[in-house]
Amino acid sequence: MAGTIAVYPGMFDPVTNGHLDLIERGVRIFDRLIVAVVTNPRKTPLFSIDERLDMLREATKGMGDIELDAFDGLLVRYVRQKKANVILRGLRAVSDFEYEFEMALTNRQMASDIETVFMAPNLEYIYLRARLVKEVARYNGDVSHYAPDYVVKKLKEKFHF
Amino acid sequence: MAGTIAVYPGMFDPVTNGHLDLIERGVRIFDRLIVAVVTNPRKTPLFSIDERLDMLREATKGMGDIELDAFDGLLVRYVRQKKANVILRGLRAVSDFEYEFEMALTNRQMASDIETVFMAPNLEYIYLRARLVKEVARYNGDVSHYAPDYVVKKLKEKFHF
Amino acid sequence: MAGTIAVYPGMFDPVTNGHLDLIERGVRIFDRLIVAVVTNPRKTPLFSIDERLDMLREATKGMGDIELDAFDGLLVRYVRQKKANVILRGLRAVSDFEYEFEMALTNRQMASDIETVFMAPNLEYIYLRARLVKEVARYNGDVSHYAPDYVVKKLKEKFHF
Amino acid sequence: MAGTIAVYPGMFDPVTNGHLDLIERGVRIFDRLIVAVVTNPRKTPLFSIDERLDMLREATKGMGDIELDAFDGLLVRYVRQKKANVILRGLRAVSDFEYEFEMALTNRQMASDIETVFMAPNLEYIYLRARLVKEVARYNGDVSHYAPDYVVKKLKEKFHF
Amino acid sequence: MAGTIAVYPGMFDPVTNGHLDLIERGVRIFDRLIVAVVTNPRKTPLFSIDERLDMLREATKGMGDIELDAFDGLLVRYVRQKKANVILRGLRAVSDFEYEFEMALTNRQMASDIETVFMAPNLEYIYLRARLVKEVARYNGDVSHYAPDYVVKKLKEKFHF
Amino acid sequence: MAGTIAVYPGMFDPVTNGHLDLIERGVRIFDRLIVAVVTNPRKTPLFSIDERLDMLREATKGMGDIELDAFDGLLVRYVRQKKANVILRGLRAVSDFEYEFEMALTNRQMASDIETVFMAPNLEYIYLRARLVKEVARYNGDVSHYAPDYVVKKLKEKFHF
Repeated sequence: MAGTIAVYPGMFDPVTNGHLDLIERGVRIFDRLIVAVVTNPRKTPLFSIDERLDMLREATKGMGDIELDAFDGLLVRYVRQKKANVILRGLRAVSDFEYEFEMALTNRQMASDIETVFMAPNLEYIYLRARLVKEVARYNGDVSHYAPDYVVKKLKEKFHF
Repeated sequence: MAGTIAVYPGMFDPVTNGHLDLIERGVRIFDRLIVAVVTNPRKTPLFSIDERLDMLREATKGMGDIELDAFDGLLVRYVRQKKANVILRGLRAVSDFEYEFEMALTNRQMASDIETVFMAPNLEYIYLRARLVKEVARYNGDVSHYAPDYVVKKLKEKFHF
Repeated sequence: MAGTIAVYPGMFDPVTNGHLDLIERGVRIFDRLIVAVVTNPRKTPLFSIDERLDMLREATKGMGDIELDAFDGLLVRYVRQKKANVILRGLRAVSDFEYEFEMALTNRQMASDIETVFMAPNLEYIYLRARLVKEVARYNGDVSHYAPDYVVKKLKEKFHF
Repeated sequence: MAGTIAVYPGMFDPVTNGHLDLIERGVRIFDRLIVAVVTNPRKTPLFSIDERLDMLREATKGMGDIELDAFDGLLVRYVRQKKANVILRGLRAVSDFEYEFEMALTNRQMASDIETVFMAPNLEYIYLRARLVKEVARYNGDVSHYAPDYVVKKLKEKFHF
Repeated sequence: MAGTIAVYPGMFDPVTNGHLDLIERGVRIFDRLIVAVVTNPRKTPLFSIDERLDMLREATKGMGDIELDAFDGLLVRYVRQKKANVILRGLRAVSDFEYEFEMALTNRQMASDIETVFMAPNLEYIYLRARLVKEVARYNGDVSHYAPDYVVKKLKEKFHF
Repeated sequence: MAGTIAVYPGMFDPVTNGHLDLIERGVRIFDRLIVAVVTNPRKTPLFSIDERLDMLREATKGMGDIELDAFDGLLVRYVRQKKANVILRGLRAVSDFEYEFEMALTNRQMASDIETVFMAPNLEYIYLRARLVKEVARYNGDVSHYAPDYVVKKLKEKFHF
């Protein structure tokens, strides 16, 4: 086997400690890891693509050989274009599970040579969602347990400057 | 990264097409794959360890570099002894999901350097269980869709010779 | 369409108000309904086949054209032999759902001309299981809400005569 | 029993192979089947009622005695008006299950003489959703496995003419 | 222990018999119960805060020592300000379960001295949602089984005056 | 309200840190807490009633006003006999949820004046089961994260003396 290249796609709006935990695990297992921000024109994220990439860059410093990127369109097309063969996804709860399965099996239908691989985040991040982090930050609650310092700072600027 | 060695543990009582599907996927992604039959003294499998290894050997011929083995005791201890760093598990349904999570998080608690990685089998095997194959074979039903020919033959010998 | 004949298989150990509720719904929808007691040699039911059929007979009196029967072996083989084309099953909870799906899809694999049809019992029986009725009756608890009088009487005889 | 008339309600935006699979199963079991497009003023479907009925007409040609219709307002009121006694629904995954149960039990509360009956689609359509088909088609992905040719053509016209 | 004060937060848009059932259970167990309407500026409820409080007042008359209130911002901050130590939540179905767990564990992370306590509503309200009540009322369906008379009247005024 | 007395029933075979976490939460919320070991003649626990009570006594020292007891027969009968009005249960995962709901609603059917109240354990114990602790200890794995020292010692004596 020549080497396994994995793409870890997500909104990362913003990156949380749960995402970072998964990135660390992915780096340990795959030969190369590409963290790819989804740019979906029909969603309205809190942070722009540039802000999300910026926070990811800051948060993954020193974590090893990680490529940060953004893409739109079909995930499997992007994975192929990057000559990757694995999609990495975190699995946390039953509600995730069915959505993730739906996506994984649809992607496999379109590209049978690409595998989706699931990993569990650290237990303390198992109920952590970016949506919840934003909700708590919006009300000026403490989110330092859920996101790296730089992201906490950016959330404060967004909601309370 | 030097190379990822994965252990795929299971009862394989007997090996089904669902297991084989996962083995094929594992071979494509990991540098080396060890398929390890669990020998649990408190369970009473239909086939002996030797029979199970024999069926696995027959079924995985030509599938690539796969090591077949058996072990008892703690899985993480076995994984370490084999100098592997990944446990591979199939995920099919919600009921699997919670049991598998429980196992993965317990194993991580005992050995934080070993990662459990989940993959989905081919859609047509998503509701396939070895227990069901045995149940159908016992009543002389057709299980050729669920298991390789050699296993179908061994099931017939077990129940109807 | 000539007429839909449905088989409602189960252990009925013993028949509960939840089963009866489903039988009533089945009678309204299908041209003929066969209630078929499973005789699984590897399970140890509380009541014998004859006792279970006897309780079913008593409980379904006046409910319409219902055939009571017992069978062993593969369900789809029995359904075909009865020239039926539908298997009726109750669905109550998520844990049921996956097991029932597994069975339905396995049966379809073996006999694509036979359909499994699911119905929900009355809301008040949605968490009712025969196992629980036996557990409560064993400790002399009141099960009159869960089973018809005749069954309650038989449970008392079994546990406390 | 005089005859069972079933209504299969849905958005059908657009009709997929999963819907068609269920329609075929329904035709085999019920005396008459009415496929009824829901016209919910608070949702913004991709296709108009007329387009959806047109695609259904094309896709169900030769499938037997199927009535195609559209309705708004309460489902049980529509079912009664059509003198039907069964609502047919597909069940695919656990997440469906709870929503469908909620609807079935609410409808039963309003009309106890109408039964909801669930069937499983073919295994290969078990993770198929109209939403996903639209998402893939929007990005010019191949959806020919998920929908009949005529629908694939209409999706292309919608997104890429 | 000095006394347990519980806050039961919710949208109550409008209050249903399921909510009232839980309020009655909470009153029996806790020393004091505060029913707190959430005022989330990013949601568009059918009824105003004042209307929702008005319906709650009418519906909880004579139910014992209940305080009705509204709040915005972080729930745990509100609970502390009221010197309460318990958050009361109803649990109905699996889909609720994961969302509720996510909220309970996030709240515990922010305020480890506040406990979330779950209770099951009466079985007949287990699939009841305020969203469904509004949907049925909008189409002039009968919702008298799901909500107290005063709320039924207010729903009629809202949709059909 | 005179005071809420809660019974926390369980096998406690053996008591784990997850149980202790729930006991601590129960003590904070209820006026009195009775921890009651279930003595089910049809199960074969690893530890005797006396051993389980002994470990509970050791583990709950200094935790406040807790009564330790054992009972057999119907739970609701025991709760009434202790003049308690609440049953306390931990909720961890979806698979728990349905079983617990089934029990809670059955108990309510038999005794409508007794409420079942659910609480979530600390996140780190959310996938912890006594069965798993025994499994790991049997193979001489480290269980010090899952159970108090005294229990770890007793497990060692049981499996390896």
